[in-house]
Amino acid sequence: MSVEKETIRIEAFSDGVFSIAITLLALELPFPRIEHIRDNKALTDAFLHNWPSYLAFVLSFFSILIMWINHHAIFKHIHKTSSGIMFANGFMLLLVAAVPYPTSLIAEYFNSPAANSAVAVYAGLFILINISYNGLWYTASKDRHCLKADVNEATVRFFRRVYLLGFPAYVVAFIVAFFSAALSLAICMVLWIYWALSIRKFNR
Amino acid sequence: MSVEKETIRIEAFSDGVFSIAITLLALELPFPRIEHIRDNKALTDAFLHNWPSYLAFVLSFFSILIMWINHHAIFKHIHKTSSGIMFANGFMLLLVAAVPYPTSLIAEYFNSPAANSAVAVYAGLFILINISYNGLWYTASKDRHCLKADVNEATVRFFRRVYLLGFPAYVVAFIVAFFSAALSLAICMVLWIYWALSIRKFNR
Amino acid sequence: MSVEKETIRIEAFSDGVFSIAITLLALELPFPRIEHIRDNKALTDAFLHNWPSYLAFVLSFFSILIMWINHHAIFKHIHKTSSGIMFANGFMLLLVAAVPYPTSLIAEYFNSPAANSAVAVYAGLFILINISYNGLWYTASKDRHCLKADVNEATVRFFRRVYLLGFPAYVVAFIVAFFSAALSLAICMVLWIYWALSIRKFNR
Amino acid sequence: MSVEKETIRIEAFSDGVFSIAITLLALELPFPRIEHIRDNKALTDAFLHNWPSYLAFVLSFFSILIMWINHHAIFKHIHKTSSGIMFANGFMLLLVAAVPYPTSLIAEYFNSPAANSAVAVYAGLFILINISYNGLWYTASKDRHCLKADVNEATVRFFRRVYLLGFPAYVVAFIVAFFSAALSLAICMVLWIYWALSIRKFNR
Repeated sequence: MSVEKETIRIEAFSDGVFSIAITLLALELPFPRIEHIRDNKALTDAFLHNWPSYLAFVLSFFSILIMWINHHAIFKHIHKTSSGIMFANGFMLLLVAAVPYPTSLIAEYFNSPAANSAVAVYAGLFILINISYNGLWYTASKDRHCLKADVNEATVRFFRRVYLLGFPAYVVAFIVAFFSAALSLAICMVLWIYWALSIRKFNR
Repeated sequence: MSVEKETIRIEAFSDGVFSIAITLLALELPFPRIEHIRDNKALTDAFLHNWPSYLAFVLSFFSILIMWINHHAIFKHIHKTSSGIMFANGFMLLLVAAVPYPTSLIAEYFNSPAANSAVAVYAGLFILINISYNGLWYTASKDRHCLKADVNEATVRFFRRVYLLGFPAYVVAFIVAFFSAALSLAICMVLWIYWALSIRKFNR
Repeated sequence: MSVEKETIRIEAFSDGVFSIAITLLALELPFPRIEHIRDNKALTDAFLHNWPSYLAFVLSFFSILIMWINHHAIFKHIHKTSSGIMFANGFMLLLVAAVPYPTSLIAEYFNSPAANSAVAVYAGLFILINISYNGLWYTASKDRHCLKADVNEATVRFFRRVYLLGFPAYVVAFIVAFFSAALSLAICMVLWIYWALSIRKFNR
Repeated sequence: MSVEKETIRIEAFSDGVFSIAITLLALELPFPRIEHIRDNKALTDAFLHNWPSYLAFVLSFFSILIMWINHHAIFKHIHKTSSGIMFANGFMLLLVAAVPYPTSLIAEYFNSPAANSAVAVYAGLFILINISYNGLWYTASKDRHCLKADVNEATVRFFRRVYLLGFPAYVVAFIVAFFSAALSLAICMVLWIYWALSIRKFNR
């Protein structure tokens, strides 16, 4: 009972951070200043001109959503928390909270000559996020005394493999960013779709 | 038990997004700059002059509240989550998180010649929101294995009908926006009152 | 069970709005711009000069905290939600979400000639908040079928009396605001201390 | 049952404030303005130049995380809430909500001649936070009727000692701030690591 309550609170706190970070993304959408808008056409143009911002918003929203679904899938297998799990989880939340920042960089700079740096910062953050997921699962599954009794070895290896695979993929996205911002973003998107489908298959 | 816990977490995460989006609306209220305010009368005038902002705040607050009540009513009938429900719910939350943005557009442009475009963006977002509710209910109710056992066919059809009806209504509001911003907003308001009453009758 | 779950979700959603509104208050604290700050003394002076902002922050924080404690005390007596309760609660949350706005007005204008208008807006919002609490308790307690079975008539009358008493008190604070901003704020503070003590006595 | 529900709501509300305050920290990260950025190198330089902001973000994130872990550890021993606990907890949340503000001061002024004042405000806030933790534990443990029955005297003394020790340490950090901003921050960091390790040992 007391053990159950512990997991509930760490999940509630994490849900809070995830839901705030995902909602704050919308605060970064650029707002057309009224001084420059004279009529309906000007506002429509300003609105359509901001498409990289809407794309960045949607991309980051789904990346955080998939992170949340993964977090949820991990904690479904944990029956007891430890200090190690709390700090590994904390490190991951720090990075989740930071996602709106490089999202704004992409929104602002994707159509500028500084697009490569902006996307490199974005991909760099996802390298760190990948490390934090590997760390969280490693901390939770070593010794196995924090996992639920019915978690089998195949599950432990499934998560380890999926997260380890992300590391080289994000490193590639990071390096590609210096040559093609669009291609780097596309690699990130393919990864998220892959995880979405993996988790989907696993949840069946 | 484990199944029950799953629904709790997706509801908690959604509640987080709903409550943040609804509270962030207040951040968009325009603040009278002290440089232009010399006395009590000037501040009162500036405050009263911003009435479209307060109206937009109240409108969007109640639209999100009614969306939350609907979300609540939908999840009362779901006993088990699936990947499909998670993504349909995620798409809906993306749009909820976006509501403060066109709300600010209305607050800023309702008294300007660009009012039509601003209201069209607002109505356009609600078309997407309507699609997301249709999608969420469709995903939850097809095959029925995610619904609770005691949910009868009448309930399934009730929700489907109410949400399908919203689609043409919002399309009308969107088209009307190009001719009359005020009339388009009025159509949206009538729809929300209709849903509030429908759900009220249904909850009895 | 299903009934219990309903109350949990409306409380969780309300807690979300309360905790976000209370935390957003800190975003309104004025930030000394680096262009005007040359040394430690200048920063210390700028920091100390903003005292009305810190006072407004602390005042509004405790007012929202006391509202939350009252919300908590009300919902402890409710065992079942209804559409009426949902909308009365929604109206109250709308006003809670709006508290940061007049708080900024006070922070910005308390030391200016427009202090009276700023405090009048603040007191005016609390008149509406008082109406919403009266409305919520009235909706919850009429017919009594939403209250828990063990809630006696004395409790119903206790809440009604405490909230009804607030209405004339806030009206006085609103009228006084036009003559003395400081006195009007002082009346609000006395009221909050009174409620804090009433609830304390009642909780024993 | 009713008693259990009370603790759940105060924890949920507190979790909300903690998770919002910790996520809002990221909103304070300085954003390079596009007018000054001509190419990838300029954006990379602007990004790297902001290192005190990232350091301040990480520091404050972990300080709030450790506060949350402590809050969690305290409430694990409380089985029943009282008005005293609610106000002591409210005072603590007020200070948690305020953490983003001096964090921005450090981010903005750490590389300027006003660094000492900025860090002094930061350390000063942590003196108040320490007082609030002492107050919360004192309120919860006096008379012991709010603690769970199985909490022994050693636990009560453990928390009291750890929190009392923080007071002189933060006062030292505050005084040192006027001579060396970097050393003062270092003292705060050593304290957080000490608490992280204490709680870790205690949780075993």
